Amino acid sequence: MIAEIIGVGTELLLGDTINTDAAHVARELAELGIDLPHCQVVGDNAIRLEEALRLALSRSDIVITTGGLGPTKDDLTKETAAKVAGLDLYEDAGCLAALREYFGSRQMSENQKKQAQIPEGATILPNDAGTAPGCALPCPDGKFIILLPGPPRELLPMLAKYVRPFLQNLGKGIIYSSKIRVFGMGEGAVAQRIDDLLDGQNPTAATYAGEDELFIRVSARADTETAAKAKVQPLVEEICQRLRDVVYGIDVPSLEYVVVQELVKNNVTLATAESCTGGSLAARITDIPGASAIFGLGLVTYANEAKTALLDVPTGMLAQFGAVSRQVGETMAANVRLLAKSDLGIGITGIAGPDGGSPEKPVGLVYISLADANGCLTRVMRPEGKYRGRERIRRHAVNVALDMVRRKLKSKLVPELLEKQFK
Amino acid sequence: MIAEIIGVGTELLLGDTINTDAAHVARELAELGIDLPHCQVVGDNAIRLEEALRLALSRSDIVITTGGLGPTKDDLTKETAAKVAGLDLYEDAGCLAALREYFGSRQMSENQKKQAQIPEGATILPNDAGTAPGCALPCPDGKFIILLPGPPRELLPMLAKYVRPFLQNLGKGIIYSSKIRVFGMGEGAVAQRIDDLLDGQNPTAATYAGEDELFIRVSARADTETAAKAKVQPLVEEICQRLRDVVYGIDVPSLEYVVVQELVKNNVTLATAESCTGGSLAARITDIPGASAIFGLGLVTYANEAKTALLDVPTGMLAQFGAVSRQVGETMAANVRLLAKSDLGIGITGIAGPDGGSPEKPVGLVYISLADANGCLTRVMRPEGKYRGRERIRRHAVNVALDMVRRKLKSKLVPELLEKQFK
Repeated sequence: MIAEIIGVGTELLLGDTINTDAAHVARELAELGIDLPHCQVVGDNAIRLEEALRLALSRSDIVITTGGLGPTKDDLTKETAAKVAGLDLYEDAGCLAALREYFGSRQMSENQKKQAQIPEGATILPNDAGTAPGCALPCPDGKFIILLPGPPRELLPMLAKYVRPFLQNLGKGIIYSSKIRVFGMGEGAVAQRIDDLLDGQNPTAATYAGEDELFIRVSARADTETAAKAKVQPLVEEICQRLRDVVYGIDVPSLEYVVVQELVKNNVTLATAESCTGGSLAARITDIPGASAIFGLGLVTYANEAKTALLDVPTGMLAQFGAVSRQVGETMAANVRLLAKSDLGIGITGIAGPDGGSPEKPVGLVYISLADANGCLTRVMRPEGKYRGRERIRRHAVNVALDMVRRKLKSKLVPELLEKQFK
Repeated sequence: MIAEIIGVGTELLLGDTINTDAAHVARELAELGIDLPHCQVVGDNAIRLEEALRLALSRSDIVITTGGLGPTKDDLTKETAAKVAGLDLYEDAGCLAALREYFGSRQMSENQKKQAQIPEGATILPNDAGTAPGCALPCPDGKFIILLPGPPRELLPMLAKYVRPFLQNLGKGIIYSSKIRVFGMGEGAVAQRIDDLLDGQNPTAATYAGEDELFIRVSARADTETAAKAKVQPLVEEICQRLRDVVYGIDVPSLEYVVVQELVKNNVTLATAESCTGGSLAARITDIPGASAIFGLGLVTYANEAKTALLDVPTGMLAQFGAVSRQVGETMAANVRLLAKSDLGIGITGIAGPDGGSPEKPVGLVYISLADANGCLTRVMRPEGKYRGRERIRRHAVNVALDMVRRKLKSKLVPELLEKQFK
C-alpha cells in the first residue's frame, strides 16, 4: 500500500509555518508499515491543489491532505477533493450538532457551518480538539483521499484515534515497531556495533540521528500485534545488549521523561544550580508532569554574586579558578543539594558563547557536576571543531546532566563515593 | 520567477526528521519575492528523485533541493541532478582543497572525496560549516537546479551568504520586507483593525499566526532596496499606529530578544522566581547572548518549602491563599527582586496541569507578577475552553511575563506605582 501526503497552506510556502504535520502523518504511516515515497506541498489554491491530488492519485493508493478544512474562504481542500473524487457535498446532521455543541452559547457564524459539509459516502473522522472534522473519501480503484485539519493539536488526536484504525482496516497485517533511544554515542560508532543487524527485512532495523541524540527503529509485520511484537523483541534485545549503557530507553518520549520517572520510582529528589544553561535544565525537568514529587528547587545563579550569596561559592575560589571551573561546578552541585535538602544536586557552569571565551577556557567548555551525600562526579564538555552555537552547547550540557542522573540511578542508589571525594 | 523545493531524504518520509529546511528556504524565497507554488519530498531514491526534478523543471524556473549531498552511497542528489541537467561531473581542485583543510591531520576517506565532484559549469556554493559544498546547475531555458546540504547548521549559512546573492542576481529588482511582531491580540482582532490594508499589491501585507503570537509581513518590490524600503515604510507605520502597543517589534527575532535589548539599553536588571514555568522564563532570557548584563539570578521555587526558605513566602500565606494565588505571586516577585538586588522582579505561580486543578483553581490559572521598588503589577491568566496542554500554558505564561517587562520599560523607567501598592 502506497501513501502520499499533500500539505495545503500558503503559510507553508512562505516558510512561516514548518510542516510538522507531514512528519506526524509520516511517522504514523511508518509505524503502520505503509510506504510513503512522495510528499507535496501546495498553497491555498484550488487549481494547484486539484493538480496535486490528481498526480497523487495516479501513483498512490492513499492520499492524505493536511490543512485547508477551516471555515474561511481560503479553506478549499474539502471542496477540491470532493470534485476530484466525484462526490457531492451534503450537510451532515451529526457534524452540525457537534459544531453547535462546540460553540455552546456563543454565536456560530454561517462560515462555521461550512465545516459540517461532508462528501457523500465519506467516512467522518471526528475532531475532538476543534471544529473542522476530517474525512476519508472513497475514490475509484479502491483508493482513498483522507482530509485532516492543519493545526497539530487537532491533527494529532485525530490521527491516533480515528485515522490509525481506519488505515489498519485497509491494510493487511499489523506493523509493530520499537524505538531504541541512545545518548552519548555517535551514529558511526553505533552503526559499527550493530551493522550486521541493519540488513534484515522482517524485522527491519535502522538508525536515525536526531538533535544531540539518535535512535534505532525496529519494525516487524505479522498477522497480529502479538506476532509482530514477538519478531521485534529479540532484535531489540540484541541491539540493547550490544549498545549497553548508552541506551537510555525503549519507546520513551525523552531523556528527561526517563530521568523523572526513575527519580519518582526510586523516591530520589534532585535540585539544580545552573549558570550557562540558564534554567533550561530545570525547565526540561519540570516539563514532565509529576516532576514536583522529586524536584523542589532550582537556582539560576548567572552572576558571580548570586553564586556566592545563594550557594556559598567562596569569592576566593571564583578569583583563583574562575566561575567556569571544576571547583565552582562542584560547589554549586554540593551546596544546592544542601540548600534544597535533596538527595542529589547538579551544578553546571560553562561558556555558551558566542563571546566570553579565552585560549585557556574556550567557548563550549562546560563543567557538569553531580553531587550526592558522599561525593561529586564531574564531567567536562570540551569544544570540538567549529563553534556550533549557543543553543546547541546549552542543550548538550543539559542532556549530559540528565544522562549523569540516569546513570547514577542505574548504578545503584545507595549514597556512594563517585569519582572523587568532595572537599 | 517561480521556484520549487525538493526535500531529499528517506528520514523525511519516515517522519523522523521534520522538514525545517523547506521552511528556511521558503522564507528566503519569500523575502526575495520569488513565488513558490509547490514543494515536494522524495526519499533517497534516484529514480523518484529524477522524476521529481523533471516535474519541477517542467513548471518552475529554479528548483532547489535540500539533502543528499554527503559522502555516503545514499547521497544521490548531485549525480541525479547532473544527469537531469545533462552535465558531466569533474573533480574540482578548490573543493578538494577545502575538504583537505576541513579534515586537517585526520584521515580523509575516498567516500569523502566524492563531495569535491562538481557538475561542469555549475556555480559552487561553499559550505562554511561542513564538508559538502552546494552548487547551482544551469539547465535549458535559463533555468537552474540549486543543490543545498540537508543539515540546517550547514544550510542556513550557505543560504544567507551564497544562495541569496545568487538569486538576487537572477531576479529583476529587489524585494524588501518587514515583519511586524504582535503579542497579546488574536488574529481576528488584528485583521479587523487592518483589514483594508491587506488588499494592496505593492506593497503587500498579510497576517500569519504563529505559536502564541502572530506577525504581519509587509513586502514591496522596486529597482533598488532603498526604493522598496520606501514603499514598505509608510504601510508599516500605518499598521503599527493602528495596532499600537501590541506590536512588540519590527524585524526582531523574538520577544525575549526585545526584552533583553531594552533592559540592557536602559541598564535595568531583572530577577525571576518561577513555580509552574519551572525555569523556562530564565532559560528564554539567557538564550539571548549578553543577558548576563541584566540578569544575575533566577529561582525555580517549585516546592512550597523552597518558596518559604528562599523567598520568605510566609507559611501562613501559603496556608490561607494557597501557592497559586496573587499574594504568593507578588511576594515571589518582590522578594526575588530584593534577594538579587535587581531593579525588577518577576514571580510566576500557577497550575500547568494536566493534574492539580480544582473547581476554584482550575488548570491554566497562572498569576504573573512584576515588582519594582514601589509596587507590583499582577496579570492573571485564566483557562479558556479546552485544556491546551502543559507546554502551551507554560509558554504563554512566559510570554505574558516578558511582555509585562516590555510594557513596563516602555511606560517609563522611573520607579512608579503600578497597579497597586505592594504590601
